[in-house]
Amino acid sequence: MVNVAILGFGTVGSGVAEVLTMNRELIDKRTAQQVRLKYILDVRDFPDSPYKGCFVKDFAVIENDPEVDIVVETIGGATVALDFTTRALKAGKSVVSSNKELVATHGYELLQLAKANGVSYLFEASVGGGIPVLRPLTNCLAGNEVEQVCGILNGTTNYILTRMIRAGLSFEQALKEAQDNGYAERDPSADIEGHDACRKICILAALAFGEHIYPEQVPTQGITAITLADVDYANSCGYKIKLLGRTLRMENGKVCAYVAPHLVSGSDPLAGVEDVFNAVKITGNAVGDTMFYGRGAGKLPTASAVVGDIVDIAKDVKTRKCNEWGPGAKDLVQAPDELAFRWYVRVNAAVDEVRKACGEVALLARGGAPAREIAFLTEAMTQAQLEQKLAGLDMLSAIRVLA
Amino acid sequence: MVNVAILGFGTVGSGVAEVLTMNRELIDKRTAQQVRLKYILDVRDFPDSPYKGCFVKDFAVIENDPEVDIVVETIGGATVALDFTTRALKAGKSVVSSNKELVATHGYELLQLAKANGVSYLFEASVGGGIPVLRPLTNCLAGNEVEQVCGILNGTTNYILTRMIRAGLSFEQALKEAQDNGYAERDPSADIEGHDACRKICILAALAFGEHIYPEQVPTQGITAITLADVDYANSCGYKIKLLGRTLRMENGKVCAYVAPHLVSGSDPLAGVEDVFNAVKITGNAVGDTMFYGRGAGKLPTASAVVGDIVDIAKDVKTRKCNEWGPGAKDLVQAPDELAFRWYVRVNAAVDEVRKACGEVALLARGGAPAREIAFLTEAMTQAQLEQKLAGLDMLSAIRVLA
Repeated sequence: MVNVAILGFGTVGSGVAEVLTMNRELIDKRTAQQVRLKYILDVRDFPDSPYKGCFVKDFAVIENDPEVDIVVETIGGATVALDFTTRALKAGKSVVSSNKELVATHGYELLQLAKANGVSYLFEASVGGGIPVLRPLTNCLAGNEVEQVCGILNGTTNYILTRMIRAGLSFEQALKEAQDNGYAERDPSADIEGHDACRKICILAALAFGEHIYPEQVPTQGITAITLADVDYANSCGYKIKLLGRTLRMENGKVCAYVAPHLVSGSDPLAGVEDVFNAVKITGNAVGDTMFYGRGAGKLPTASAVVGDIVDIAKDVKTRKCNEWGPGAKDLVQAPDELAFRWYVRVNAAVDEVRKACGEVALLARGGAPAREIAFLTEAMTQAQLEQKLAGLDMLSAIRVLA
Repeated sequence: MVNVAILGFGTVGSGVAEVLTMNRELIDKRTAQQVRLKYILDVRDFPDSPYKGCFVKDFAVIENDPEVDIVVETIGGATVALDFTTRALKAGKSVVSSNKELVATHGYELLQLAKANGVSYLFEASVGGGIPVLRPLTNCLAGNEVEQVCGILNGTTNYILTRMIRAGLSFEQALKEAQDNGYAERDPSADIEGHDACRKICILAALAFGEHIYPEQVPTQGITAITLADVDYANSCGYKIKLLGRTLRMENGKVCAYVAPHLVSGSDPLAGVEDVFNAVKITGNAVGDTMFYGRGAGKLPTASAVVGDIVDIAKDVKTRKCNEWGPGAKDLVQAPDELAFRWYVRVNAAVDEVRKACGEVALLARGGAPAREIAFLTEAMTQAQLEQKLAGLDMLSAIRVLA
């Protein structure tokens, strides 16, 4: 018997209970164990829940019950969740988490703590929801030097961009629709400002390159400044605008990591990832490009990833499943400032002014463009070079083109 | 120290040697072992090879060397490879294979043999080349009841179809180009007749549903009958023709498995998988659709998957990594005859005859169609129903539409 306690009965936590119940027979078969839900910790009451016998309000009950093998942390945030995760690991229980904020900010110390206590700390659900990506990255691709990880890591922003591209909605209209459909929070800033994607690229970078990358080291730009004009111009030259989290191994041994919108070519498989779907492209020195695609959020998809981790641990609770990375360093991470990109640029200027600044660029066209609105793609250059070239012009948009 | 022996120094075998050498440092770090290539078995001489000290011609040298922990079988076929794999497992060595034919025909008995000898038999490279797919299916998605696996499993045929779709080449022209580019064998029948995809869907079905599915149980149709006319008509209504291997869990507990060309909607991520790339879509009852994409063949991508398995074993050679499935049964697998599909149909007939047989179907159009060539999409029906409906007509093509 393997006993599981779920911390937090919100969307993901209740999904985990549902999947453990719905697929109990096959989970027992695959683990050669009886995997049972023993506790659910939540401050609220759920008198009508089918799990009503499981609810507790005091974490100490779980912490002090030697029968609990696996604690599932789906509380979110990095305060209470940090406290409970720390105590669970110290109590010799393995922890499975969907909490990207906690892993991105405290992953190193929690992995060390898990190691010291001979237990596992797994968090497949923290990146890409139900998409298997962390385990393939660390296991299946373990024969590769990872060169780059690049992904559509946030479903809310991808939904908004898809609706702008396909239905011609403005950013504000698309955001409202996403909120009405339950794809965006009332306070959408963590999504639309890119912070959610930032936490996920931190986790991917740590697993790919072996050192903790902290969110504050990762320049992060969201999609709030993207206009329909930009979407139209991108479309006119065969590109889609996507919010990407990206991390690359640099020749100097540093890691480049950032979150920003990009123009993605229609021939790149990332361009076809629409609505709330996520995709993560991993490039290795042997395998080349691989891509992992699926639902990046939602109750059952995220629960699928959590239960996958539970199964992994339950197969053999005594053997620690190890993820591990180093503590990171202040000067390990570099901004994308030194990378050369082609840029999509939209300015308020006359053609002559643009030509004077940038030479013979091919102009893009869209219907209904106001006078003096000029858009074009540049040659490859760094951000500093771009800013220098366009110094005298009234810049409306500048978005990187993914090579 | 973990010692590896490679059987067969062809494309994949030499790729494995190359990746083990190129990424030695990180492989040692990730396994906390020294993973070293000790032997390469090949009947040929390679006097200029950087591995020339490793070559042996007698398998008994490897079989009888207690220092060899992992045998990599990249011979192919199911004769010598079966003999050597059997002997290696009996000698207590784990075996890593890229040989889909051997796994699809003898997987059950070899997995039993591995179990009896306390060693691992892993074959991530046998499906999807470098794409991590078997391990995600069995590990990350272990909390799911798998409902369906559907994939573009053969790069050669996908290349041929892509060239027909994009460059307007005939099947014969595209095949010749694929051969000239090294994407197709001189004898291309295993690819173009669908046998390669058949073996791969057998392996996916066995892992998804837990019972061995044998190639002779899987109706298999290749792409040799696909014409440019079909490609054009498909294109005219927003579909791409793709060769799919597909397996589904049926309500009666049986497994449906088959290989056939399908019309795939442009909005399905499988439609965007082009050239020699492969993709496998797995549908689970919790996760929904996930898709895994990458290079399905080639020296280093396939070697990447082999080395991923080597790393998995080398981390802890004493612990068996288990894949396991049952022996299968004659009546377990059913043909797709009872599944209802919409069909793309092309006939040599007059419009009136078609309307009389099929009712008010919407006709498709293409440039340069001869008189009396009529193409259309039907309502959903089984193959028997389709044949009955069109009994009196001169049928030129009938291709399933993927729902």
